[in-house]
Amino acid sequence: MKIALAQLNYHIGNFESNTRKIIHTIQKAKEQGADLVVFAELAVCGYPPRDFLEFTEFIELCEGSVKQIAEACKGIACIVGTPTRNPRIEGKDLFNSACFIEEGKITAIVNKALLPTYDVFDEYRYFEPSREFSCIEFQGKKIALTICEDLWNINDNPLYIASPMDQLIKEGPDLMINIAASPFAYNHDDNRVKVLSDNSLKYKLPLLYVNQVGAQTEIVFDGGSFVFNDEGRMLDQLKYFEEDLRIYEFSEEKILDLEPVEYTPMPDIDQIHHGLILGIKDYFVKSGFSKAVLGLSGGIDSAIVCALAAEALGAENVMAVLMPSRFSTDHSVKDAMDLVNNLGCKHHVIAIKEAADAFEHMLEPAFKGLPFNIAEENIQARCRAIVVMAFSNKFGYILLNTSNKSECAVGYGTLYGDMAGAIAVLGDVYKTQVYQLANYINREREIIPQNSIVKPPSAELRPGQKDSDSLPDYDILDRLLYQYIELKKSSRDIIAQGFDEELVRKVIKMVNKAEFKRYQTPPILRVSPKAFGMGRRMPIVGKYLS
Amino acid sequence: MKIALAQLNYHIGNFESNTRKIIHTIQKAKEQGADLVVFAELAVCGYPPRDFLEFTEFIELCEGSVKQIAEACKGIACIVGTPTRNPRIEGKDLFNSACFIEEGKITAIVNKALLPTYDVFDEYRYFEPSREFSCIEFQGKKIALTICEDLWNINDNPLYIASPMDQLIKEGPDLMINIAASPFAYNHDDNRVKVLSDNSLKYKLPLLYVNQVGAQTEIVFDGGSFVFNDEGRMLDQLKYFEEDLRIYEFSEEKILDLEPVEYTPMPDIDQIHHGLILGIKDYFVKSGFSKAVLGLSGGIDSAIVCALAAEALGAENVMAVLMPSRFSTDHSVKDAMDLVNNLGCKHHVIAIKEAADAFEHMLEPAFKGLPFNIAEENIQARCRAIVVMAFSNKFGYILLNTSNKSECAVGYGTLYGDMAGAIAVLGDVYKTQVYQLANYINREREIIPQNSIVKPPSAELRPGQKDSDSLPDYDILDRLLYQYIELKKSSRDIIAQGFDEELVRKVIKMVNKAEFKRYQTPPILRVSPKAFGMGRRMPIVGKYLS
Repeated sequence: MKIALAQLNYHIGNFESNTRKIIHTIQKAKEQGADLVVFAELAVCGYPPRDFLEFTEFIELCEGSVKQIAEACKGIACIVGTPTRNPRIEGKDLFNSACFIEEGKITAIVNKALLPTYDVFDEYRYFEPSREFSCIEFQGKKIALTICEDLWNINDNPLYIASPMDQLIKEGPDLMINIAASPFAYNHDDNRVKVLSDNSLKYKLPLLYVNQVGAQTEIVFDGGSFVFNDEGRMLDQLKYFEEDLRIYEFSEEKILDLEPVEYTPMPDIDQIHHGLILGIKDYFVKSGFSKAVLGLSGGIDSAIVCALAAEALGAENVMAVLMPSRFSTDHSVKDAMDLVNNLGCKHHVIAIKEAADAFEHMLEPAFKGLPFNIAEENIQARCRAIVVMAFSNKFGYILLNTSNKSECAVGYGTLYGDMAGAIAVLGDVYKTQVYQLANYINREREIIPQNSIVKPPSAELRPGQKDSDSLPDYDILDRLLYQYIELKKSSRDIIAQGFDEELVRKVIKMVNKAEFKRYQTPPILRVSPKAFGMGRRMPIVGKYLS
Repeated sequence: MKIALAQLNYHIGNFESNTRKIIHTIQKAKEQGADLVVFAELAVCGYPPRDFLEFTEFIELCEGSVKQIAEACKGIACIVGTPTRNPRIEGKDLFNSACFIEEGKITAIVNKALLPTYDVFDEYRYFEPSREFSCIEFQGKKIALTICEDLWNINDNPLYIASPMDQLIKEGPDLMINIAASPFAYNHDDNRVKVLSDNSLKYKLPLLYVNQVGAQTEIVFDGGSFVFNDEGRMLDQLKYFEEDLRIYEFSEEKILDLEPVEYTPMPDIDQIHHGLILGIKDYFVKSGFSKAVLGLSGGIDSAIVCALAAEALGAENVMAVLMPSRFSTDHSVKDAMDLVNNLGCKHHVIAIKEAADAFEHMLEPAFKGLPFNIAEENIQARCRAIVVMAFSNKFGYILLNTSNKSECAVGYGTLYGDMAGAIAVLGDVYKTQVYQLANYINREREIIPQNSIVKPPSAELRPGQKDSDSLPDYDILDRLLYQYIELKKSSRDIIAQGFDEELVRKVIKMVNKAEFKRYQTPPILRVSPKAFGMGRRMPIVGKYLS
């Protein structure tokens, strides 16, 4: 039996495109001699479809797609992920299902039992967990088919009280197939390989695993589908961050013709770079735009975003706007111009003094000579947002936000100013990682100007301002933030690690007090196990450590 | 046995204040002769605590509060809601629990079985559902204690496959107690009374129900706790939108000394008015602010927000900023000034022409004489945001957003302009309801100027602009939006109701295309069964009906 793994890039709710792509792949797999082709979880509608699932019409469109896909399955079988309706009146109205299709007909439906409802996942919001398990017979073999999380209950503190494979194994299956929509984070692939390997080892079965690839707004899928033998050894792995289709021959309880390969994880920064490029590219492709605009300050964050955008969209599609204020240092415009020249992207220089002065003049009667403070600092940041948004409105450019994760965390940014944008490229990348990204981008030649890398970070909103006036060194800050954000450690535990107590309390307070700002920030491309946004849901007027 | 129902206003994560309030109420109930006092669901930490629940330290603080509360329970028992740890290694780490406390000790813990995970609710994100059920014995009586949703599985399409009361009834309980955190929506009280009445009728038991009161950012709790007899008849109801404490005597399977009362629901607009006032008030009180700022256009939306803020915070704490542009009509400033005079709030008049001209001048080289369009319109709206945010930054005022639900729905608003603010007061109130609110506010004397009510709505961002240039009449638009947003009807079903097909497709497309804007809007005070924000989660780059 020849089984094809189809690792594709879907688009949420774009039934026409998803169905066409799936049917095209069925034909391709058939031409290459496959007996069965396997698509990912919720392939017909894309993942995560969110509250679209609450619309009957949306479910009917899924059903329509499955019908078209079934008609294309002649002389080849397929497994495809789709929501299906729960026939029982009790419980949620839908299942997260895998349809097994042979000769134009759905011959079996497997429903997901373990529904991830944490971080970015909301599956129990929509789906009833399956309580019935049985293998699928195909060409004389028994397939234990599961959906993503169904294989993830295999650790010391399992999230669920049951494991589908513990039921399925009783039927003596010949192999496992798992279809997934398993989002990217720079540490996720290691976990995934470990968990899936543990499954093949525990159940002594070969395992074929198909993931999605591509970005859906903030969530990036990295692909990396793979095949394990019945001893937990990896036999092959599909491409990362690209579509791929491969065919494997299965017989006598074995994947034929393949020797175990060594799993060599990609370094974190390479992964983050690939994830961000795919994230930017798919945001534009899937929303039907092609051109980006951003404010270029001469600092490292906007330089990196500009370089990533040029790589993802083409330099000719990137408009950099340099907006010096009266506090900008001489090198700011020069550093920004060096980058523009290195990349070859378009640019404008628009000084904001005229607008900032106008506001200060207009506000004079109300502010009655009160001293310059954060109000005037923010006016400048917001004048810049008006300028870049005017470019966006006039020419249809999409504004890229350039805030990094360290700033987002402590609220070091101006709402409706530098926190504006359609998508935040670096919002899940700590400042210390931003520097690593700079070195990665410069790995072959200098793209990010050295001066942007080495100069002390500054918002340049008042004379001589430096980030270090208000914030601890990023080396310390980022390590502390990682403990609190990613690891969810208590202040007590963080202090016990040797961080200064006063600093820990101050930083956590800053993080918690900035919830109101983060609530209004653009979606953030997720590259870490805990990004701000839909995966981290905090009260705004709460009073915990704030 | 005398049972006190304590309907209190908690503050998420404010353990000191919540614990003090609970202990004070225990003492008060004891002084009034109560044997048992009942607090709401998750009373110790406030509802919804969200991802605070993922911090061990937060759970320890809950446990510390319960310990202090237990120590105060001498000569009186209490029921209090708190998260507790799941002793089993399998499943989620927490339960959503009710502790029964007698003589300084927790004598029983009841865990919630039905975990709402829809709309604004995320309970399965945190909690393991209970699978064990038993009544609590107290003073020779058996109490069937359940938590909120546990009683809500009583309809034609139940969300859950099991019902806790079906188990508990087997033990022959004498009464039901339900502790809740059941958020307000203008149609919710009717449902609640019906569902709880149906329970008391089905199980032939008296029912005491305690809800929270007060607002937690966008979610408002309306109180309205109540008591039913064993025939589903209401005997008493606590106050709406206020704290309350009442004591009931229970004996011989009856609530003594009370005759059935007629349940008379408050009209929708009265409820919405109360909900918004409480929402504004608690946002300020709980975030430690007292003064508000808003842009006053002379139109009805900002007039209503100004009037509500003056009522909630005191007119002396409201700063109205009038910001005419070169397209503002003469009556705009006059209508706004009439309102300011009617309310007696503070104001400034700051024309935005100077700043808008500055931007147009600065952008001239880049825009090269391209015609005036949405770019210049938005510059004006964004200049206004800069002005009011400068007031916010200079004086510590909180910016109130004045967008209504109709605008939010179709994206008729400027991001980082009139869509700015800390909290959106009318974001869940359709334009047609805004007019009803105006009449309600004017019920005794003219507060909202008649001219703001009768003139055609306009953003005044270009000469002679009217909302009706871009949008259908609000009467039609709002009815159409209600079908799509609140009722989640498919376009086909909406068209079948007689709406123009082209209009339906156009409006739904506008709604779906505006997701990227709504993602960045402030939290919206929720008064309807389906508000924009955390309760409505849609993909941004999806391609469904967009």
